[in-house]
Amino acid sequence: MNLRGVGVSPGIGHGPAYVLTASVPEPPEGATYTGEAEQEKERAMVALTQVAGELEARGNRAGGEAEEILKAQALMAEDPGLVVKVRTLIDRGLAAPRAVFEAFTKYQAVLAGSGGYLGERAADLDDIRDRVIAILYGHAMQGLPISPKEPYVLVARDLAPADTALLRKQDVAAFVTEEGGPTSHTAIIARAMGVPAVVACGGATAIPPGVRVMADGTSGDVRVEPAASDVAEAVGADTARQTAFASAKGPGRTADGHAVPLLANIGGPSELDDAVSAGAEGVGLYRTEFLFLDRAEPPSAEEQRRAYRAALEAFPGGKVVVRTLDGGADKPLAFLPAPAEPNPALGERGLRRFRRFPEVMDAQLGALAAVASPGLQVMAPMVATAEEAGWFAQECRARGLRDVGVMIEIPSAALRARELLVRADFVSIGTNDLAQYAFAADRQVGAVSALHDPWLPALLDLVAMTATAASDAGKPCGVCGESAADPALACVLVGLGVSTLSMGAAALPAVRAGLAAHTLDQCRRAAEAARAQPTAAYARAAARAHLPGLDRLGL
Amino acid sequence: MNLRGVGVSPGIGHGPAYVLTASVPEPPEGATYTGEAEQEKERAMVALTQVAGELEARGNRAGGEAEEILKAQALMAEDPGLVVKVRTLIDRGLAAPRAVFEAFTKYQAVLAGSGGYLGERAADLDDIRDRVIAILYGHAMQGLPISPKEPYVLVARDLAPADTALLRKQDVAAFVTEEGGPTSHTAIIARAMGVPAVVACGGATAIPPGVRVMADGTSGDVRVEPAASDVAEAVGADTARQTAFASAKGPGRTADGHAVPLLANIGGPSELDDAVSAGAEGVGLYRTEFLFLDRAEPPSAEEQRRAYRAALEAFPGGKVVVRTLDGGADKPLAFLPAPAEPNPALGERGLRRFRRFPEVMDAQLGALAAVASPGLQVMAPMVATAEEAGWFAQECRARGLRDVGVMIEIPSAALRARELLVRADFVSIGTNDLAQYAFAADRQVGAVSALHDPWLPALLDLVAMTATAASDAGKPCGVCGESAADPALACVLVGLGVSTLSMGAAALPAVRAGLAAHTLDQCRRAAEAARAQPTAAYARAAARAHLPGLDRLGL
Repeated sequence: MNLRGVGVSPGIGHGPAYVLTASVPEPPEGATYTGEAEQEKERAMVALTQVAGELEARGNRAGGEAEEILKAQALMAEDPGLVVKVRTLIDRGLAAPRAVFEAFTKYQAVLAGSGGYLGERAADLDDIRDRVIAILYGHAMQGLPISPKEPYVLVARDLAPADTALLRKQDVAAFVTEEGGPTSHTAIIARAMGVPAVVACGGATAIPPGVRVMADGTSGDVRVEPAASDVAEAVGADTARQTAFASAKGPGRTADGHAVPLLANIGGPSELDDAVSAGAEGVGLYRTEFLFLDRAEPPSAEEQRRAYRAALEAFPGGKVVVRTLDGGADKPLAFLPAPAEPNPALGERGLRRFRRFPEVMDAQLGALAAVASPGLQVMAPMVATAEEAGWFAQECRARGLRDVGVMIEIPSAALRARELLVRADFVSIGTNDLAQYAFAADRQVGAVSALHDPWLPALLDLVAMTATAASDAGKPCGVCGESAADPALACVLVGLGVSTLSMGAAALPAVRAGLAAHTLDQCRRAAEAARAQPTAAYARAAARAHLPGLDRLGL
Repeated sequence: MNLRGVGVSPGIGHGPAYVLTASVPEPPEGATYTGEAEQEKERAMVALTQVAGELEARGNRAGGEAEEILKAQALMAEDPGLVVKVRTLIDRGLAAPRAVFEAFTKYQAVLAGSGGYLGERAADLDDIRDRVIAILYGHAMQGLPISPKEPYVLVARDLAPADTALLRKQDVAAFVTEEGGPTSHTAIIARAMGVPAVVACGGATAIPPGVRVMADGTSGDVRVEPAASDVAEAVGADTARQTAFASAKGPGRTADGHAVPLLANIGGPSELDDAVSAGAEGVGLYRTEFLFLDRAEPPSAEEQRRAYRAALEAFPGGKVVVRTLDGGADKPLAFLPAPAEPNPALGERGLRRFRRFPEVMDAQLGALAAVASPGLQVMAPMVATAEEAGWFAQECRARGLRDVGVMIEIPSAALRARELLVRADFVSIGTNDLAQYAFAADRQVGAVSALHDPWLPALLDLVAMTATAASDAGKPCGVCGESAADPALACVLVGLGVSTLSMGAAALPAVRAGLAAHTLDQCRRAAEAARAQPTAAYARAAARAHLPGLDRLGL
């Protein structure tokens, strides 16, 4: 059996399938119990408490965003309304599993009836309910294998932060999910871990548990029970590719020597080692919000200075681009009151929130100023207008910071890049958010995944406008979105005039090799050909026709 | 005392202030009751049931979106978890009002702890709680005056659909709110009712109830206890302005005779009379989702045909542009399962949802084909790519519909308007949503209202790109967002190459007069001057410098 999805993290992964199926059977209608009502109630309470405790403990271990999510779920498992309902149903004679099932159903209906957002929380309840029922039936909820004999291929409908929080790279050969797109959580985690991944792979969860699976994270092919010779061939080709990557050493450049510094995206000091070993020439995107997530108080000035200094010391000659706190939307900050917003991605996030909390801004810019060295660049997220860019630049310069830039991740910023660059020293394009807004398509929603394709020509238009404005101003223009991690698209970005590329460290070797195999002129022709097309698929094909080296490298 | 806000619906309104203050005092901590616990519990239950009943009844009377919201709130007032909590607290000795207060606080904490979306629902609980406590204290919740002696100026922090659902135009002299922007609910309702309105007016709710207030919905000035002579002068100037509007009759055109058809936005047949009396030359935007909202089943084919035919018959010579169902996001449809989405505005709405439900699409396009006449044009909302435009055009043409267009309300559609126009016969720009996505700023969120200014130059860029593409293709390009209702901006839009303008009927006279006072060349120079500026305020000032007739007309 062969399945086809979208490859989002390159490499060949093979091993036994480990299929995550969350469903627990519905307890039969009208099921009763023998024994005392009080005992049955006690059983139910113990199960609810145990699930709440497990969710909380998993949250503590995971930290970060996963912790937030899991702790909210723990709270729901002990909601007083639910507890009372369960007890009442048991008093009426229902067995504990059925009482739990019906109480959750009722609670879900109330939530779901209140509209779309609560509907989403209602879905969260399924997972909690199933865990409680599993305990009452005496079979443990499915967990991931601990220290498996060989790495497994993790197959699921989709993976949430809570699922991947505790995964270890050495245990997972590949990810295969039915949902998701190139910028979904699964894709980002897989690339960060350097594990091959295929998403949007219909029918994947029908793969029988335990059978051998091979996933090709480049082509998106998923083979069930492949012949040994096929595995050997695919692995051989992949090894050859890795060897080619390994031989493309040194700073990023095209075949004719046009330098394109290749930088790493990091979330904290712990990711610096990987970046250095992958040959990054610096940090192109330091996501500082990861220092702030998952804590009741912001990090101290000293902790911040240490975190920034570590990056500057890891790249003594290179540059380190620090993005100021990008809180809000899907990155809630416990110490800043979060406004209730119907569409958090269109709300008070990034610079907008930073501007509202001068003490947080002052502390972060102060810590950056204290460690400033010639390689340090500071930039703001979610800038929409020249006024905002001017305000941020002024705040930074007042504190002695000299190299100040802005992210281009809102369409208006790309359209007016020229005016932003009057105020800023450089720009860096965040292609994921830029696409999300340019196509009005939530990165988290599978139903609109056709609009997440980074090859969509309108997105290339916005990159081109920005790069041209930067080039006219004689200032640098980077790309730090997921687009930069695709070797073909990386060549196109360079052809559009982008001057640096920043990506997860795992993608650096392939991008370096892809660039080294083409001249700047080839990149320009590829870019022009792509922009002339009306659809993403045509754009990709047209670009690749000008980039023959990619096929040779198996990219 | 004078306050200053943003005028969003023109005209002078004056009358006694009616100040909506929602807050009910917190019942004292530890408050106890005399008498039986059962009686106190009964009192609480009656109050909860009464509030649920009132909310439900108000929902039924209001219909539409307001009904959805109010019915969800009614459900929350009778949540089993809440009820049990209230009873338990009364058993522990707390008085009913305090028990209700604490039970709601606890329930809110659970919801709010689960993140931003539930936080929003948590805020809804305040209103429900206050209503219950008001009943328990024996004072009725504030309602609006019924058949007041003279029209009042309605002052509030902000107005929700539930507040305005039952308002009658003859009772309200003006709206003044502290929150909101030009595209907020208050602004849209005010323009639809033809009532002057000022939003974003800080300090408004501090106006003492009953004192006379004059609000200028053009300048945004709000005067508290104005001198009688000032009222007379303002009303005189406004009357002169109205006279000038009344004298600008006939089809829309510039001073030098360049025709710009002026059309009306409508939500259903009941708005046709106003459109005809205001001299609309047709319907530029028929929001058909209002036929579908607020019902368990879609309207029948016959009902749809009647609703579309009514518009065609109201404008025998003119055109009627029907937008197909724009469900999802803030317009939930009861008969289509709504997906749970973290950011509904970036999710499966408009054409995306329409495409998923072929039976709904088939019924609507069938009804349109059945009434087709030469004036009928059909267009799709939320089109992002040429592929989507092509798909929609094909579906329409297969049913015999001939004049098929797309909305331009997503940045990518403006960037690639040229390709969309290969497939579509016309385009219509929805400036409200286009701005929302271009600046990544939710229309519903006051904290980002600086990014809702329709004069922001990046928005003008997107309009210019679209209009130029349409002109090159020899096809019409309309604007049907709120921008078209601002006389100065309407001139700029025409200068950018827009061929028709559609707006709420109340705005037609002012826009017609503004256009008639300037030549096409003046409009072009105003547009060019606006686009050359870096900020909205500069753009507006630069445009107006080329449009001297506006000051003469008091616009």
